[in-house]
Amino acid sequence: MAHYQATIEYDGTAFGGFQRQPSARTVQGELERVLTTLAGGEAATVRGAGRTDSGVHATGQVIDFHLTWRKGEAELLHAVNLMLAKDVALRSLSLAREKFHPRYDALSRTYQYTLLNALTRQPLLHRTTLHEPHPLDVAAMDRTVRLLLGEHDFASFGRATTASENTVRRMLTARAWREGELVQVELQANGFLYRMVRSIVGALLVIGRGEQPPEWIQTLLAAHDRGQAATVVPPNGLCLVAVEYPE
Amino acid sequence: MAHYQATIEYDGTAFGGFQRQPSARTVQGELERVLTTLAGGEAATVRGAGRTDSGVHATGQVIDFHLTWRKGEAELLHAVNLMLAKDVALRSLSLAREKFHPRYDALSRTYQYTLLNALTRQPLLHRTTLHEPHPLDVAAMDRTVRLLLGEHDFASFGRATTASENTVRRMLTARAWREGELVQVELQANGFLYRMVRSIVGALLVIGRGEQPPEWIQTLLAAHDRGQAATVVPPNGLCLVAVEYPE
Repeated sequence: MAHYQATIEYDGTAFGGFQRQPSARTVQGELERVLTTLAGGEAATVRGAGRTDSGVHATGQVIDFHLTWRKGEAELLHAVNLMLAKDVALRSLSLAREKFHPRYDALSRTYQYTLLNALTRQPLLHRTTLHEPHPLDVAAMDRTVRLLLGEHDFASFGRATTASENTVRRMLTARAWREGELVQVELQANGFLYRMVRSIVGALLVIGRGEQPPEWIQTLLAAHDRGQAATVVPPNGLCLVAVEYPE
Repeated sequence: MAHYQATIEYDGTAFGGFQRQPSARTVQGELERVLTTLAGGEAATVRGAGRTDSGVHATGQVIDFHLTWRKGEAELLHAVNLMLAKDVALRSLSLAREKFHPRYDALSRTYQYTLLNALTRQPLLHRTTLHEPHPLDVAAMDRTVRLLLGEHDFASFGRATTASENTVRRMLTARAWREGELVQVELQANGFLYRMVRSIVGALLVIGRGEQPPEWIQTLLAAHDRGQAATVVPPNGLCLVAVEYPE
């Protein structure tokens, strides 16, 4: 059996998230179903770098798996993509180091959240953007999000996925910018708490609408209390765009 | 009752086309349902400039309707958009001339077809592009499509929707260009036969792959026979982007 790693893209709309579940269609479940078929029924296990929630998209999720395959990587990528549903695909595939683990080896993950900031909504963008009709002060949002750079206890913006884990994370990139009617928020950190990006974007919207000054986010951060935070925004605007590894 | 015209956008994926049908979800049916509710149950009729097929999108479809409404156009647009499903919306709305007819007054319609020309497919684009892995000679496609400019009998590329109608149309704009991994084909004509854009794009793909020279399209055109033409491409890459009117 060879060890492979792959970068994958998916439209999260019709998936109950990345992680395998007994009664929901998931990205992991769909990939394992196809790989198990390709392996002639021998059960294949897929591991992912990030457990994206239901409705969240990815252009740069990283996975790994072991498979008995007699041909080259290009042929394997092509065969898997032919068998996968239209809303998920491998974008690239290569042999992995023996010890490679997509989750534990990752130095950081980069997420992007996209807002449509226009009076009327655009149906062709409804699966991949959050419609925000109120004019947003994107300069204020950018100033705000940069206040999160560096190491902080992000307990106000999400919970750890296991009880033993702490809520301190290091934010490596944090910026917001406008592209016409679209507003992009990009966050890169060494790890993210459950719903952390969507909770931060919820706070940025409050500031972008002028309801609170940028410094409000520091008050939220210092509270270490999720009860203080703004509404968590919906998953449809969120996309895991990259996972970064050493070398 | 006032007479309104509106420009609408829709994601055609989950619609059985524009035109009302007894047993399918259609754009016209969805609009008429909402307008009838807003009119307190008084049946509203919507007319469209183009009858897009099942799965075809629009960013610039034009409609009209009559409605008893006591407030302004901005309030009406907002109310309709609140009530419509996420995959359809009014983009703009204004009062229409008494005699305005979105279909008969139109001078021309502009369609755009989008291809993803890359080895691996992109799930986030699967609803709005056709994936074509073979490298395309877009310069040859552009030269080809320009041969269709002017007045021609397009019988080889589609049939008239009624028996009394002829198959001569005037092509006003015809071009193809590359934007990174995307290839765009734009066609503007005073009218289109049934499946004409998708049939022309099917022929352009044969030429773009190098299987026929650009002049082949003139042979097809001269045949006046749909049996000669290439495969009709799927609807998901097609979008009605504009309808042009006098003044």
